[in-house]
Amino acid sequence: MTESFGALLTRTFASSGRLCVGIDPHAGLLESWGLPDTARGVRDFGLRVVEAASGRVGIVKPQIAFFERHGSAGYAALEEVLAAARAAGLVIIADVKRGDLGSTVDAYGEAWLTPGSALEADAMTAVAYQGLGSLDGVLALAGRSGKGVFVLAATSNPEAFATQTATRADGRSVAAGVVSDVAAHNAAAGGAGAGSAAVGSVGVVIGATVALTDFGLSPAALADLPVLAPGFGHQGARIDQLPGLFGAAAQNVVVSASRSILSTGPSGIEAAITAAAAEAEAACRA
Amino acid sequence: MTESFGALLTRTFASSGRLCVGIDPHAGLLESWGLPDTARGVRDFGLRVVEAASGRVGIVKPQIAFFERHGSAGYAALEEVLAAARAAGLVIIADVKRGDLGSTVDAYGEAWLTPGSALEADAMTAVAYQGLGSLDGVLALAGRSGKGVFVLAATSNPEAFATQTATRADGRSVAAGVVSDVAAHNAAAGGAGAGSAAVGSVGVVIGATVALTDFGLSPAALADLPVLAPGFGHQGARIDQLPGLFGAAAQNVVVSASRSILSTGPSGIEAAITAAAAEAEAACRA
Repeated sequence: MTESFGALLTRTFASSGRLCVGIDPHAGLLESWGLPDTARGVRDFGLRVVEAASGRVGIVKPQIAFFERHGSAGYAALEEVLAAARAAGLVIIADVKRGDLGSTVDAYGEAWLTPGSALEADAMTAVAYQGLGSLDGVLALAGRSGKGVFVLAATSNPEAFATQTATRADGRSVAAGVVSDVAAHNAAAGGAGAGSAAVGSVGVVIGATVALTDFGLSPAALADLPVLAPGFGHQGARIDQLPGLFGAAAQNVVVSASRSILSTGPSGIEAAITAAAAEAEAACRA
Repeated sequence: MTESFGALLTRTFASSGRLCVGIDPHAGLLESWGLPDTARGVRDFGLRVVEAASGRVGIVKPQIAFFERHGSAGYAALEEVLAAARAAGLVIIADVKRGDLGSTVDAYGEAWLTPGSALEADAMTAVAYQGLGSLDGVLALAGRSGKGVFVLAATSNPEAFATQTATRADGRSVAAGVVSDVAAHNAAAGGAGAGSAAVGSVGVVIGATVALTDFGLSPAALADLPVLAPGFGHQGARIDQLPGLFGAAAQNVVVSASRSILSTGPSGIEAAITAAAAEAEAACRA
């Protein structure tokens, strides 16, 4: 039987901790790394981050926009980076934030979550502006293939607040509605309890500087959900604030840091990863 | 001075009508067209649709998921299809539904809307789950480059209803909030009145079977906005219902049809395009 993504994540947390290193080869970072702003540059950047992450953390998160910016050549570079990450045993979360309907959203799932596909990752991020039900095809494919999906729930940018706190007819905020719909999906799919998994295979994205109560959320609502929390370091959240932000659900958090690590450059990245990984583990033991 | 996307669309409506032909090479259509489910298959499919659309309509909408499904090879095929569409003088709307924040969303804009980029289109679809402000970088780039953006507002799938009708603190539904935020953006950017443009350069996506009032929307709210309305034909909306659905704003609608045209196969597609284009013009004259 295929191991579920929830079980893979639980195992990875235990063996390699909760830190997730972003792979964000944007123009500014390429320049400061001394790399050209080309497909070759994003490839070299990505391979160097994978090399630095290998053996130090368990999870990486390539930000696909920075590869797409270079067209098909950028995607070919991405395929090399994904293959290197897989060969290194890293769990890969493709940060693509895809969302659509019907056969279109199925195609996105097939692109990113099909075993053996050129762009295969272990999980992808998704957007449910068209309702979690619009992602059913992706969630079902993920379940069959031992893959994961992280659905955008509450984000830390101020301009998101009006939409994500809007009140649905059932009284939930849009963000809390995503969380409860995801929890219901996981329960219907067999729950977090399947095998050795402490969390379900579908999770949510919650910004690391978000105050959960502002969105009608609580740590209890996240009890069984993997939470991808971007923004540690660069965007202002400190890793040692993790238990304060997420309470008991801090155990489920993929602690994602990108700029704060990547900005140390190709010579400083190993030390930055090691320090951030230790900080994440200390915070979750606290 | 660069022609605005609103002006380009206004000119295209006048010269070539409102019909937009989808380029959706999904597995089922490839099979019925006798093409392999490979990058080569989606390339041949896309080039054939461009050939059929050329001279018969003014706008095409490649659905990028079906190219992404084949990885970097699929994107290379897409680049050929985009180049052929551009050479044929077709307005290209890249249906990508991208959305994110900061430098990430900027990178998406650069990928799809930068003149000369490998994936250059004339407009892209976007999602504002993180608020319209999260797309500011893309909207600004579009304005500078004479490109357009269509932001998802109200869609016809039932599972979208809870989210898109949720009530924001300002009393607007999420869908109506997107529409009013887009209208405010266009007004700040100089309005639809710039030059010969009858519509602004940023528009919205509204499903062709949506009842506007269910979302707190009205034709008046769409007065100056280009509206991309997918779902004519296959998804149940009839083109002759256009004025009934959109009222006076029917003049602004990009009438998008995919499956109903593509399912006629490589031998029937020209006739299907000609018939649908005539139907769209008759509906807008009514």
